[in-house]
Amino acid sequence: MTIIENNKDHANQILHRIYHRTSHAWRIGITGPPGAGKSTLVERLAIDFVKHNKTVGIVCIDPTSPFSGGAILGDRVRMSSLFLDPKIFIRSMATRGSLGGVARATNEVCDLLDAFHKDIIIIETIGVGQVELDVAGIANTTIVVLVPEAGDSIQTMKAGLMEIGDIFVVNKSDREGADRLTMEIESVLEMKNSQRTPPVLKTVATEGKGITDLYNCIMEHQKYLVSSGDFTKQKREKITSEIVELIDSKIKSNLWQNKKINSNLTLLVEKVIKGQQTPYHASEKLIKIWKNSRGVSR
Amino acid sequence: MTIIENNKDHANQILHRIYHRTSHAWRIGITGPPGAGKSTLVERLAIDFVKHNKTVGIVCIDPTSPFSGGAILGDRVRMSSLFLDPKIFIRSMATRGSLGGVARATNEVCDLLDAFHKDIIIIETIGVGQVELDVAGIANTTIVVLVPEAGDSIQTMKAGLMEIGDIFVVNKSDREGADRLTMEIESVLEMKNSQRTPPVLKTVATEGKGITDLYNCIMEHQKYLVSSGDFTKQKREKITSEIVELIDSKIKSNLWQNKKINSNLTLLVEKVIKGQQTPYHASEKLIKIWKNSRGVSR
Repeated sequence: MTIIENNKDHANQILHRIYHRTSHAWRIGITGPPGAGKSTLVERLAIDFVKHNKTVGIVCIDPTSPFSGGAILGDRVRMSSLFLDPKIFIRSMATRGSLGGVARATNEVCDLLDAFHKDIIIIETIGVGQVELDVAGIANTTIVVLVPEAGDSIQTMKAGLMEIGDIFVVNKSDREGADRLTMEIESVLEMKNSQRTPPVLKTVATEGKGITDLYNCIMEHQKYLVSSGDFTKQKREKITSEIVELIDSKIKSNLWQNKKINSNLTLLVEKVIKGQQTPYHASEKLIKIWKNSRGVSR
Repeated sequence: MTIIENNKDHANQILHRIYHRTSHAWRIGITGPPGAGKSTLVERLAIDFVKHNKTVGIVCIDPTSPFSGGAILGDRVRMSSLFLDPKIFIRSMATRGSLGGVARATNEVCDLLDAFHKDIIIIETIGVGQVELDVAGIANTTIVVLVPEAGDSIQTMKAGLMEIGDIFVVNKSDREGADRLTMEIESVLEMKNSQRTPPVLKTVATEGKGITDLYNCIMEHQKYLVSSGDFTKQKREKITSEIVELIDSKIKSNLWQNKKINSNLTLLVEKVIKGQQTPYHASEKLIKIWKNSRGVSR
């Protein structure tokens, strides 16, 4: 996992070799704003799956700050009860570097857990921008967790969160405003044009309330995906975007590891600063240089 | 602007032709969580700049939802007082489509406003993931706006926000917790290894309190950037990433408009689903096909 997370050279070789073992696990993404109680929910859900004789892998995407130099949130501490369970494996991933890269690395770590025969993989994201939405592309079932006190409620929600949820959870539902928020979410979901309207559940994760309902909803969603044919559609989309991303990153690294391109880029940037060139012509020039140098190396 | 926002074919030609007129305006990015009062702050700041005989362009990045079909927030309504001022031009941009694309389109709209001789361009983002952070790559001065009631305060802040601010504003500072939040921000900023520690200001935008201080801080930051040489550094980085993005998007469109690539992608995806192929080998195969078909077309 460390090799893969650090994007070392032979990561792709490893992933290629284990790929045929990777379509066993069901992947559950859990996303939502910070403070929604996602970690507690993940913990309770993991215990529930173990009770149903499933092995569980948990991947936590941690926001790290380049200058504070580590994870900001102490959520991992709360999951400590799980560390002793041999049926549960937990991996924290830092969001250092590009966020697109994190989504990809997370997917690859899920592939590894899958190859090692975890039945269930839970991916938890913490309010870190794009990754919050990207998790939907990695997971089979995406759960969006919200809490009553979320300010102006769904008005202030990150654009996109309403689109990606297969199941919505109003956690801390013993607090004021839980019913109103539930109704608001339901009324937005009604506008959605799809065969299946995502259910909205109320939970109090700290007390274990609603976890069985959530478990059942996940099972129902799994059944729905498989029987409706959406599972194959989901798989097709996922594989397509995996290949597209691999190609894009391979071409990019081929391009930017080219010394001729880099030295010409530096020269052209200075020309743009001096007003002798525009970025638009500069980019065309560099593409020509790349084409020619590829021609030479072939 | 509509041509550019919709990424029409001749957008790059237009941008190339106006490029030599685009280094006049000072670009101010305003970012922070929803509900921080950014729109009101932008409005007050714009009026202040007009008082100082500056022309102002405002670019608002609106979160839109694919299935609610429009802007979620009604912030624009609050800025209505500015619509009548001929010295102020307001443009709302939807965040439809890819977020990376929005950052680029925003930058290009700023170039247009710059070419049309706006002295000041204010870019306001609304809590929409990555764009919140990308604005720092577009702006000369980045202002991060926070409010006292932001939950667990800076603990729950989006990772990265603390890094990008040149000026921090605690808005709604007449509310409880403003002093504590200000101190917290200052203590985090002290850890930053840089020559200049960003100032933390208190404002009450609805009453116009602290706006003059903010105006002065922006002017100071401008002076600092120019005198320290960081302005040239910023410009160099910006132009470099502009060229890199142009090249990446040109190569991508060349690649994915290739019919041979697309038909082979479809075939290979089906092979992966059947377990006869992995995404890793599939991507290598497609790159080879692309190289050869480029060879033919040359």
